[in-house]
Amino acid sequence: MFAAPISNLIAAFERLPGVGPKTAERFTMYLLKSGRGETTRLTRALDELLRTVTSCAICHNFAVTSPCERCTDTRRDQKLLCVVAEPTDVEPIEATGVFNGRFHVLRGLIDPVCDEQPTHLKIEELVARVKNDTAITEIIFALSPTIEGETTMRYIAERLKRPQLILSRLATGLPYGGLVEYADEVTLGNALKTRQDV
Amino acid sequence: MFAAPISNLIAAFERLPGVGPKTAERFTMYLLKSGRGETTRLTRALDELLRTVTSCAICHNFAVTSPCERCTDTRRDQKLLCVVAEPTDVEPIEATGVFNGRFHVLRGLIDPVCDEQPTHLKIEELVARVKNDTAITEIIFALSPTIEGETTMRYIAERLKRPQLILSRLATGLPYGGLVEYADEVTLGNALKTRQDV
Repeated sequence: MFAAPISNLIAAFERLPGVGPKTAERFTMYLLKSGRGETTRLTRALDELLRTVTSCAICHNFAVTSPCERCTDTRRDQKLLCVVAEPTDVEPIEATGVFNGRFHVLRGLIDPVCDEQPTHLKIEELVARVKNDTAITEIIFALSPTIEGETTMRYIAERLKRPQLILSRLATGLPYGGLVEYADEVTLGNALKTRQDV
Repeated sequence: MFAAPISNLIAAFERLPGVGPKTAERFTMYLLKSGRGETTRLTRALDELLRTVTSCAICHNFAVTSPCERCTDTRRDQKLLCVVAEPTDVEPIEATGVFNGRFHVLRGLIDPVCDEQPTHLKIEELVARVKNDTAITEIIFALSPTIEGETTMRYIAERLKRPQLILSRLATGLPYGGLVEYADEVTLGNALKTRQDV
């Protein structure tokens, strides 16, 4: 048996996603061997996170200010609003350089099996935002093309219906570099149905 | 780009062994989503580790006291001293229930390619300990049967030579449940050479 402070830290690491007992032990031993500096670095970063990170009251992304920098940035295209499931979906879309509008983070997707009323999601907030912010002319759904993503999109689209409001979604089809030979039936079928002009 | 406190914590997690950028991001997002309790639990465990864990001056294992509980436990067989490479090697040996002596942790192994003088290892401490502690009659080398383990064992054995001191090592051979058919040549060759009476 390890001493209590060691097994406590192992237990704390084990709560992280995908971390089992052996990995948690490895993290702890690494910190014990690396000396105080390494442990202090991690403790400080955790403290800073607790102290400074909040949720933006407008887009519901994690941020250090509320409203966040993106929501108050007037150089962004105020007409476009991109709806994503999670805070982790924002950066990949920013990285494309193709989108310069604003975001709305739902903080999850509807689970069609369990969710009767998806009150844990920021859907009411989205409906209110779109109603009050008349600059918005297009909602782009950037949700994963899964059962959960489709259900969420349909549910929100029903709530947002309004004349002159364009509702669009990410294109589905073959991923860039993907081989027709190895594409699954649904992807290939969808790519045929939504074929684009050359 | 994530806000600074978020990317700082991602960077801190990335320093842990086997953790890449995606995993570090996943840990951080998990903590952000789980609320303050989860982050505080980890911070407290890290703080406690920094505050309380030290190295035992006798066996060089991680411990909360120095000398540690095992080194001061008089019910342990004072005649046997088990030499291991790392603190993580102690618990598996304890778990066998076969050994009830004391330990000495080298804190690493000699790298035959790089190490001229293995001064970073607790070898001098072991030599001094065996010299001063006349109760010890047998040294059991529980080092992995690798080039590094063998080199370290030979080096230490040379330094420890003393009449009436037994030097022994973990048996090498087929692992329990291992199939002869799949055993590698070196393991099988060694198992033949060191064959045991039935």
